Amino acid sequence: HPADFQDVNHMVIFGFGFFLMVLRRYGFSSTGFNFLLIVLGVQYSVLVEDFSVFLGVQEDEAGMRSVAKAVVSMTAVVISTGAVLGKANPVQLIVMTLVELIFFSISRCINRTFLQVPEHLSLMHVHLFGAYFGLAVTSRFPEPPSGLDKSRSTPKSDLFSMLGTVFVWVFWPSFNSLLADSKQEAVLNTYLALAVSAVAAFMLSALTSKDGKFRMAHIHSAVLAGGVTVSYTADTIQHPWIAMILGLLGSVITILGSHCLQRCFNLALKLQDTSGVHFTFGLPAVLGAVACVVLCVVEEGIVEQWNDLSSLGYLVFVDIGAFCQTISTALVTGLITGLILNIKLLKAVHVSKYFDDQLYWEVSLKLISD
Amino acid sequence: HPADFQDVNHMVIFGFGFFLMVLRRYGFSSTGFNFLLIVLGVQYSVLVEDFSVFLGVQEDEAGMRSVAKAVVSMTAVVISTGAVLGKANPVQLIVMTLVELIFFSISRCINRTFLQVPEHLSLMHVHLFGAYFGLAVTSRFPEPPSGLDKSRSTPKSDLFSMLGTVFVWVFWPSFNSLLADSKQEAVLNTYLALAVSAVAAFMLSALTSKDGKFRMAHIHSAVLAGGVTVSYTADTIQHPWIAMILGLLGSVITILGSHCLQRCFNLALKLQDTSGVHFTFGLPAVLGAVACVVLCVVEEGIVEQWNDLSSLGYLVFVDIGAFCQTISTALVTGLITGLILNIKLLKAVHVSKYFDDQLYWEVSLKLISD
Amino acid sequence: HPADFQDVNHMVIFGFGFFLMVLRRYGFSSTGFNFLLIVLGVQYSVLVEDFSVFLGVQEDEAGMRSVAKAVVSMTAVVISTGAVLGKANPVQLIVMTLVELIFFSISRCINRTFLQVPEHLSLMHVHLFGAYFGLAVTSRFPEPPSGLDKSRSTPKSDLFSMLGTVFVWVFWPSFNSLLADSKQEAVLNTYLALAVSAVAAFMLSALTSKDGKFRMAHIHSAVLAGGVTVSYTADTIQHPWIAMILGLLGSVITILGSHCLQRCFNLALKLQDTSGVHFTFGLPAVLGAVACVVLCVVEEGIVEQWNDLSSLGYLVFVDIGAFCQTISTALVTGLITGLILNIKLLKAVHVSKYFDDQLYWEVSLKLISD
Repeated sequence: HPADFQDVNHMVIFGFGFFLMVLRRYGFSSTGFNFLLIVLGVQYSVLVEDFSVFLGVQEDEAGMRSVAKAVVSMTAVVISTGAVLGKANPVQLIVMTLVELIFFSISRCINRTFLQVPEHLSLMHVHLFGAYFGLAVTSRFPEPPSGLDKSRSTPKSDLFSMLGTVFVWVFWPSFNSLLADSKQEAVLNTYLALAVSAVAAFMLSALTSKDGKFRMAHIHSAVLAGGVTVSYTADTIQHPWIAMILGLLGSVITILGSHCLQRCFNLALKLQDTSGVHFTFGLPAVLGAVACVVLCVVEEGIVEQWNDLSSLGYLVFVDIGAFCQTISTALVTGLITGLILNIKLLKAVHVSKYFDDQLYWEVSLKLISD
Repeated sequence: HPADFQDVNHMVIFGFGFFLMVLRRYGFSSTGFNFLLIVLGVQYSVLVEDFSVFLGVQEDEAGMRSVAKAVVSMTAVVISTGAVLGKANPVQLIVMTLVELIFFSISRCINRTFLQVPEHLSLMHVHLFGAYFGLAVTSRFPEPPSGLDKSRSTPKSDLFSMLGTVFVWVFWPSFNSLLADSKQEAVLNTYLALAVSAVAAFMLSALTSKDGKFRMAHIHSAVLAGGVTVSYTADTIQHPWIAMILGLLGSVITILGSHCLQRCFNLALKLQDTSGVHFTFGLPAVLGAVACVVLCVVEEGIVEQWNDLSSLGYLVFVDIGAFCQTISTALVTGLITGLILNIKLLKAVHVSKYFDDQLYWEVSLKLISD
Repeated sequence: HPADFQDVNHMVIFGFGFFLMVLRRYGFSSTGFNFLLIVLGVQYSVLVEDFSVFLGVQEDEAGMRSVAKAVVSMTAVVISTGAVLGKANPVQLIVMTLVELIFFSISRCINRTFLQVPEHLSLMHVHLFGAYFGLAVTSRFPEPPSGLDKSRSTPKSDLFSMLGTVFVWVFWPSFNSLLADSKQEAVLNTYLALAVSAVAAFMLSALTSKDGKFRMAHIHSAVLAGGVTVSYTADTIQHPWIAMILGLLGSVITILGSHCLQRCFNLALKLQDTSGVHFTFGLPAVLGAVACVVLCVVEEGIVEQWNDLSSLGYLVFVDIGAFCQTISTALVTGLITGLILNIKLLKAVHVSKYFDDQLYWEVSLKLISD
């Protein structure tokens, strides 16, 4: 159990730190702030948990499990950070962390209490909550000018970012199985889903780009899609091929999403999303939630030979309810948080100083990414 | 058990990805294709295994162990990839992966069925098979012009490559103990062999180079030699000093091999070997196979007080048979695969475009390794 | 158990290798020599241990545990290496390693035999011993000229160094719990202390630097302070908040130490300390030793209701004795070792050639850190 916890800890701090290193001149901040927010957030989560135990909302738990859950919760914040990457200053990020953890805790509490979602499934809404919360927050930030050189990636930052992605990929099975009941199955299903998703990412990247070359940004976002997609169902899937199909669908939805959606809807929706969390975590999480409902209904249906349709309907209602509640809470509270973050007190960064390490770190002129 | 599997998975994907980053302008492809081939190969291995279960050649196994064995098998392909590094395009690499896995599976099947080699020992032939298969394949590729700037390493690529080597070094005990019966002993023996081999690598590098300086290429290939040498015997060696001597011999054979052999025989044999897999994996694996026979005979001899010489002879015959069968299968099928890979359909890369990321990735002009 | 060992092994070789990469032109040597010294030292420790078993000073142990203890002992050498980083040549470093391991072994033996310090606590003196031994050794080396360009760090080496720090941070709970009796508590307490210490490091860095910017050097040294501070008490602390307060104090003492002490006393003491081991490991270890005495006394006092004051006095006497013995042995033997290292036979490096990879490695002119 400590070994699994260490794996997830390792993945969140190290993997996501690298994963977010997509920007040319923002390497120190990407890894440093990611680290700061996680250690801060975990302490804070432990306190919030203790406080809700004190209020009687929740039962007391063993210390280790409580910290493990805090680390998993922090993933939501890390994902949201990806969306506002380079736009928010450390104080804004800290406020966002504290506010988001409370809202995520409330959303989970509603799911657990009113919709009877089991504890570890309610935690698996991190990807969904984190992605849409982050998108809502970032929509309240002023848009950077389109020709900004600093918002581009260099081959070096791309390489680091790919290494981070592979790091997260390798540890994802540990993440999905951390709180699962049947660990072996969760690891196996997640591994297979991730493997299919990685192969599909390479294939689709070559197919959608001109000259049949691979594009880093595609691979960056699509290799993890499988892991996100099976996160709800990793420990209940009986047949590996179901996990593999989910991984394939996750990868397809991510690449097609980033290919088509970005062209058609972006101008209309004005989605800002520095490191592509909508495609990497948002869409696959939606797919995963839908898949969870479908698999659950089919399984129950087969067991009860499609006789007790009202109980099936109730099941579908509850699952879809939890999904809609999570996503709408994320969007609404994200918008509110975005407004809070832009009050004068927090000294928001001016658009021209976006994406720059020099604002926060004592670095010499010759920067890391030059 | 899942923790061990994760370690090996980590080592194969991350460690070898870095390990292969020796070329100046081939960083993206080294790590990216390594990742692609592994995830593809593992899925394919699982399918091949399932198919041979279906055919009745093999018994069914638990899911986890089957994937673990697939990852170990993939090491053969990764090693072969090191020999053709920068010369083959992704399609050629994928074809090579699929063909090599089948041939390796057949070779293991022969060893198991006709020579009664135990399952986990038959898997430890990965290094031997991978190295000689790769050498045979690469001999069918046109030779790059000797003055090619892109085939050199830079200090930066050397550093990454050393980091990868150290990564692989750290996880090697997990690799050797993954399928072993007595894990503790396998970890301990492998660790000691690796430690001796690393120290010897530094010493010999300083002795063989002019000015007594260390040469990265030596250390790159020799620190792992000990781990490869004890791979057959890690879980059966009773006294740590035997493992340490094997580690020392492995390191010596690697450095002397790369120092002498390269000068004398290379012109005659025209061995092409981009990342030195012959010295890193080929020679130590041969030494390990010989050591396995010697140790086995000595142990049996002592137990039976050198009375039953015919049974000893049979033992030697079987072990040497397995070794010869593996190496000759590797060479013959490697040559065939090399011929297949150079048919027109697969669009082999022209010699002038060897070792270049720009052919496969959408990268800007300013490359990672400049 | 093998998994924990692998974690610590990973941390010592990989984490400290990166951690020491603070110098512009010393990347190869920082990671390479760290690796060489560790593998050499572990083999040597195992031999020393075996020899002291042979002499009857110590009982025999299982192989795995003996290697694990050897790796922990090596941490002392790695920390000392940090103090002389870039000034000693490989031969000097090897001599230092061999001498320091013997002295550390003797110091532990005194603590165990005469002061009844338990085995795993005596090993936790590594940080204290390593830091002060290193400082004493480095005081015997000639001072580099103050304007030396090579002794500075670049953003790139800073980034690698931070990554190393985070790596060490992530694995520190495994390190503190490796030989502890109650692993779960040791992991939990260490994690919380580290988390508080990391947050405090960021806050204090922003407060003490001008413009409120973060300074890498502060974070580099202070995030680990909490782990060092709780190393003696990680498995005995009952309430997480005690660990958190210790983490906070460790971070405060480190940053204030590097801020104030460096200005006031450095000119007087002429402390040379290339990678700041005095602040990172020395001061927090002193604090941890004091905290250990205080906690021990308070706990005993509460249990015995402050009646048996003479037994309490004895306890304090023994603990302070162990601490003073360790620190004075480290300083005295460090000075002796420093004198030994500067004899002509070992060909000490000239001051003008400090901090340079080119002296030890066959590298082309264009260096890694340019």
